[in-house]
Formats: sequence, C-alpha cells, structure tokens
Amino acid sequence: MSDTKDKTLLASRRGFLTGAAGLMAAAGSAGLTSAAVAAEPNAMGGGGQDLHKSEAFWGPHQGGIATRQQTNSYFAALDIITDKRAEVEALLRVWTDAAARMTAAQTAVALSDDTSQPATDSGEALSLPPARLTLTFGFGPGLFTKDGNDRFQLAARRPEAFADLPKFPGDQLVEEHTGGDLSVQACADDPQVAFHAVRQLVRLADGVATIRWTQTGFAAGPASKGTGRNLMGFKDGTINPTDFDRFVWVGTEGPDWMRGGSYLVARRIRIALEHWDRMNVAFQEQVVGRHKYSGAPLGGKHEAEPLDLNATDKDGNLVIPESAHARLSHPDLNDGAQILRRAYSYNDGVNMTAERWPPWRQGMEYDAGLFFMGYQRDPRTGFVVMYEKMSRMDAMNQFLTHVGGGLFACPGGPAKGEFIGQRLFA
Amino acid sequence: MSDTKDKTLLASRRGFLTGAAGLMAAAGSAGLTSAAVAAEPNAMGGGGQDLHKSEAFWGPHQGGIATRQQTNSYFAALDIITDKRAEVEALLRVWTDAAARMTAAQTAVALSDDTSQPATDSGEALSLPPARLTLTFGFGPGLFTKDGNDRFQLAARRPEAFADLPKFPGDQLVEEHTGGDLSVQACADDPQVAFHAVRQLVRLADGVATIRWTQTGFAAGPASKGTGRNLMGFKDGTINPTDFDRFVWVGTEGPDWMRGGSYLVARRIRIALEHWDRMNVAFQEQVVGRHKYSGAPLGGKHEAEPLDLNATDKDGNLVIPESAHARLSHPDLNDGAQILRRAYSYNDGVNMTAERWPPWRQGMEYDAGLFFMGYQRDPRTGFVVMYEKMSRMDAMNQFLTHVGGGLFACPGGPAKGEFIGQRLFA
Repeated sequence: MSDTKDKTLLASRRGFLTGAAGLMAAAGSAGLTSAAVAAEPNAMGGGGQDLHKSEAFWGPHQGGIATRQQTNSYFAALDIITDKRAEVEALLRVWTDAAARMTAAQTAVALSDDTSQPATDSGEALSLPPARLTLTFGFGPGLFTKDGNDRFQLAARRPEAFADLPKFPGDQLVEEHTGGDLSVQACADDPQVAFHAVRQLVRLADGVATIRWTQTGFAAGPASKGTGRNLMGFKDGTINPTDFDRFVWVGTEGPDWMRGGSYLVARRIRIALEHWDRMNVAFQEQVVGRHKYSGAPLGGKHEAEPLDLNATDKDGNLVIPESAHARLSHPDLNDGAQILRRAYSYNDGVNMTAERWPPWRQGMEYDAGLFFMGYQRDPRTGFVVMYEKMSRMDAMNQFLTHVGGGLFACPGGPAKGEFIGQRLFA
Repeated sequence: MSDTKDKTLLASRRGFLTGAAGLMAAAGSAGLTSAAVAAEPNAMGGGGQDLHKSEAFWGPHQGGIATRQQTNSYFAALDIITDKRAEVEALLRVWTDAAARMTAAQTAVALSDDTSQPATDSGEALSLPPARLTLTFGFGPGLFTKDGNDRFQLAARRPEAFADLPKFPGDQLVEEHTGGDLSVQACADDPQVAFHAVRQLVRLADGVATIRWTQTGFAAGPASKGTGRNLMGFKDGTINPTDFDRFVWVGTEGPDWMRGGSYLVARRIRIALEHWDRMNVAFQEQVVGRHKYSGAPLGGKHEAEPLDLNATDKDGNLVIPESAHARLSHPDLNDGAQILRRAYSYNDGVNMTAERWPPWRQGMEYDAGLFFMGYQRDPRTGFVVMYEKMSRMDAMNQFLTHVGGGLFACPGGPAKGEFIGQRLFA
C-alpha cells in the first residue's frame, strides 16, 4: 500500500523515531496482545462456530466474558441523555427483557399483527438461529457522576476499584471512539445476529440514551487449531487466566451489585500493518518475545513453555529482550497481575496518509488493528499495573496507537426476574 | 438514536420531501433489493457455513459469482500506479498464483525459513481452514483508458457492453467509495480469512497498484431457513436468475477474454435505518410491494408466488402500488432483464447528523446499509434498464442513498496455468 519499497530506510526511520522519543513509547502500546501466563490451554480459543447453540442469559455472571469467544462482535458505548433516574432503571429493565429474548433467538419484543404501527423489532434476524449470542452490559463513570454532577444519586455507590484510568504515555484517544455512560457488546457466531441485537437495544433506548461510538470486530477463525492469531500474525491470548474467581470476577471486596461482575478495559488499538509487514521476521520475534510460527517463547520450542526471563545468550544478552512484549506483560513483572483478554480484530477501511519526512510514505493505509478487551477483578492491580510499564517500554509500541476505548463496570449477571444492575439501583 | 419521538412529524416530513422533489427520487434507490423473478428457490440463500470446505479456483468461471454466498465479504478497489503494461501483467500472474494458494488454505506465497527477511505472508490465517474462500477479480474502466490515455494499449479491447454507467437521479457517489482500475472481492465463511486474503494481494501489488477504497460486508446468517433478510428486515434476493448462461455469463457476443465472465455493478447503498424503523409495517409493505414477514407479494400468501401486477382492490387501486420496489424491478417492466444479486449488508459505525428543518433531528445515525453487487451478462440490458426506472420511481428511494460503487468487468475464470485476464493481454 506504499509507494516506497525501501525497507532499509523504513527500518532506520523506526530507529530514528524511537531514538528521538528517548524510549519506545512514540505511539502507544498494543497492550497485552500475547502475554504468556501459565501452561494451560486458552479458554478463549480453539472453539468452533455453533449457530444453533444458545448461551445462558440468567445467572451469577453476564454472558460474553467467560463464554467461549464467538466469531463476531459489535460493541456500542452510549451516552445517557435523560436526567431521570427512573428512566435509566426502566431502560435497564427493558434491555434485560430484550436481551434475554434475543439470546434465545426471539425478537427483542414480541411482534404484533397490527401493521398500522412500526414493528417492535426490525426483523433482520427473523429465522436466524441463536448463533451463541451474548449481550454484555457495562456502566461507565458517567453513570455515577457527569461533569461533577451526581445526576442519578449514584455517586456514593461508585466502587473504589472503578477509578479513572490515568493517561498513559502514547495515548491518542480520540473523542469519537472513547468513553460512554453505558456499554453493550453483542458477540455471536453470525455478524447479522450481533448487529441486530445492538440495533434493537439502541432503538429501545430512544429518548434515554444515544449511541456515542461503536466498534465491530472479528476473532481469529474459531475452527482454528489452538490459539488464534491477531493481525500481526502472532498467536494472541496464548494463555489466559484459568482462576476466574481470583483474577476476573469481583468478590466480597466489591459492592453487592458488582459481585460476580468484572471491570472491562476496552482499547481500540490501531496497528501500522504496512510497517509491521515490512519488518523481518527475526525483528518481529524480538519485539514480541516469541517465535512467530510456533508461538514458543524465544529460545523455546513449544507454545505452552513458560518464559525463561533470565536466560542469556553466549554474549550475555537476554534471550527475551528487555523491551519484549511478552516479558513486559508477564505476571512476574507485574506483581502477579493477570487479566482475561478477549480481544477482537477490527478493520474499518482505509485512510490516506502523507508523511513529511523520509521515506515520505504516502498512500492509503488500513484503519485496522485490535479491539482489546480485558476483564479483571480490579483494574488498579490489573490493566493499570501492566500497562503502566508497557506503555513506556514495550518495543511493540512502535507499531501501535491506542486511539479509543473506555472503562466499564460490568455488574454480576441477573437472577431470573432481576434486571441488569438492579442491585445498584436498589 | 434520535432525540425526537414524534413519528407523525417524521412521517409528514417524508411526505414533504417527496412532494418537494415532485417524485420519489429524493435520495437514490436501493436498486433491486427484493425483486421477484421466478418461482425457483434462491441460489444464493439457505446455505450453511462450512469452514472446512474449499471452493474451486480454476475453471471457466471465477469463484464468488455463482458460488453459494459466504457469510463475509471484503471488497477492495485499487488504482494502478504504474504505466508499464508488463508490470500489470506480472501482477495478475502473481495474484493468480496467490489466489489459487489461498483458496486452498495455503499462505499467499510459500513461507521461508529465513527470518532475516520480512515474511512472505502476514500469517494471521495460518492454521485457519479454507472457509470456502473465493477471490473474484475485476477490471475497471481505468485499465482501458485513464484521463483519455490508452496507457496500456488496451483501449481497443474494451467491450461495448462495458460502457460507463449514466449518472442516475439521486446518485451521491463520493470519490472515497467509488471507482477503481482493479477490483478484488474476498468472500469467506470466516472474516479473518477474507481480510487476510485481500491484505496479501494488496501487499503483492506494492509499487503497481494501491488501494482506492474497501468495503466489508456480511450476509444474512447462512443457517437461516430460506431467503435471508437485509437490514430493512425484508427478505432479500427471494429469486435470482437460474439461467446463468442467459443472464449472468458473457457468451460469444463478448470478446474471448470475457467469455464465462460477468459484469459487476457494485453500489454502496446507505439505508436510513432509523427512519425506516419508525415507519409502520403497512407502509413498509407498500414501499416494498411484499408482506414483511411471509415475503409474499402484496395480496398473496407465499413467498414464491408470482407477482400479480394487474390486481386491483375494490376501489380500483393497484394492490402492488405503482411505485413499489418489487413492481419496478420486475422483469415484465424491464424488457425481461434479470441480474444476479449477491449483496452484503454493511455496518461502518455511526456519524453525527444535525438537521436544519422540522423535526430538527439531531444525533448519531448508522452508516449502514447494503453493499449491492449485481452480476450480469450486459449492464446495458441489465442494471441500467432496471435502475433507470427505479432511480426515478421507486418509493424505497426515500430511505436510500447510493454513496459509492463501481463497474467492473470480471473476466472468465483461468484455466490451470493461465493467469486471470490473460486472454485480454494476449
């Protein structure tokens, strides 16, 4: 996609950029795309599309977190536009009913025979199977306070763990892809099922909340053998935590309404795919800290091997470099932190770029990358700890820019008859 | 997604707009989204995802046209940036090899063990199954002449049938989504397989061609029973031609290199989903000319019933209105024209709108709709005939805007050992 073929110049430009910045934080960080954590198979990968299966809706945890990852995702962040707490509660009640119905492959609201009215469901999922649809709801900071206002008398109920994220080095979060008072993510093995679900929820929110931003995503093919690969061509999510009670679900340390829930850090991470593709494989492997094809840690043979963080070569250099992504995201360097990564790739078309320095790259480039979604029990000891260091040190930052995202408190799942987040409003 | 709830005002605004324009052509036309043609089941619908199946690459026709429709599509239009005919030929040769390999779930180019070089394939489809990948290549008008230049000595070989489309009433084609000298569409039952394939082809084109625009798309779930529904909630593609030799494939009337090929009209059709969703069902059915849930023609009971274009009600009004989409796209009104519709829905996020007239609608709206793809033996007697009338008369135009697209000559499929379009360059 570029007019230049000069890989040498491009590589040296990279050196120049990182040198100029003093450290490798010129452009944000992928964050956590292929951390190695333990020797268990990935709970998220190695699945298979199953259009005729439904996922449970009611229960202690919302769907879409521990659920085996579906192929397609459609995420929407919404702003609340009412100032009436009762209307927010009513919306959550309506959303809960609709979500339970759609998860079971029904229309969002029962259809009527009366054709003199608009349809209660837009209809494009009629006769489509459930496709393992899950709907995962989250609350943004703005539900608790907005512009200093305790608009819904909920400020006192904001959990301590739900602290605003700091601005990390390299963050380039643009308003149009950032924040939101409410979030909903539809995941399904059929893209039309996912789109349909969010569309109905947005329609049901008319007058109460309005879309702020959206993001579509796709997972590495679910029929893949073993761990899927992200758009950098490396295995992503080799290992995720298996101890959900310890790392993912909020326990008794949190308020009642968050128990069994989890905190979501979402980050829209643009990847400079064209530049990445021009790097030689050995360099890519140094950046990642793993071998490209096997997924094994550098110096190792098998994907599931633990990282030897102290191994040195004959010259005394670390085999897994100091700035390697896999090293920096390793629990041993992060006070044991682990987060559940459930990322999707995204592909939002192409944009024109026109650089003003050597090698004067001009042309179309992808607006594509990773829609990182990390779930954790406490962001202060999860994402913040890990990304604080990575945002400054990770060699992968040369190719990544965080351009949007948000922090959302996803409450525990509703018991039958409850609505999502009911205990927050009780 | 709107701040206003006044459906009456909105409905009357619709009346105003169409009145103001004098006829229902205010905003382009969907073109052909649910034409009824014959009583055969749809060759495109009712399929099933099959991740482990491959589609044939070599043969008299390119894949991705008569192929049972896959779930995901990634389309790219490219501009040729070289002035050397030999480089274009070489690109087509390289593309052919890569496409044949990827269709069989191989890397675009064989991988090397030498890690001191960039990888010959970006790798994100490693270990993914074929997912019924097809790659369909097309030639735009710019391959033949560009800005009046016969740049590749091909101008004399441009087929008569490959005539520029007229500007239709309502067309709002924006440069960033329109045209291109070359096209490639990847269709697959896995979105990552589709993205991967186009990415490799674009990379292989470095220095010869560059992306102009791209479009992702998704089909109604392939496990649906019967005909899929588009985002308007109506069945789309109820009937497609079954006589491909008559309506789809170029025959002996065309030049040798187009025999077994087909002409593609692509149109990015934005649908005002929010407005459509606020219309009552009876009105939507009048617009379409069919019942929403059964898909039957108005006045009929079953989807497969032929349209009775002369039926009148007790007041003498046509049962299927004069401006109904299904009437206007019917072969009886179009000199028997039929085209193969192989459309995908698209969803490219949301945009801010702020109207300056009643009901002063402000807020976010979807950039979503239909990526219409119509294949035909001759556009002059296919799309042009049908859309000429529809662009002026179709009641559906109130909700649709054609915002991009292109016309491409897709040559016949390559025999083993040939490259795509070889006979054009011979």
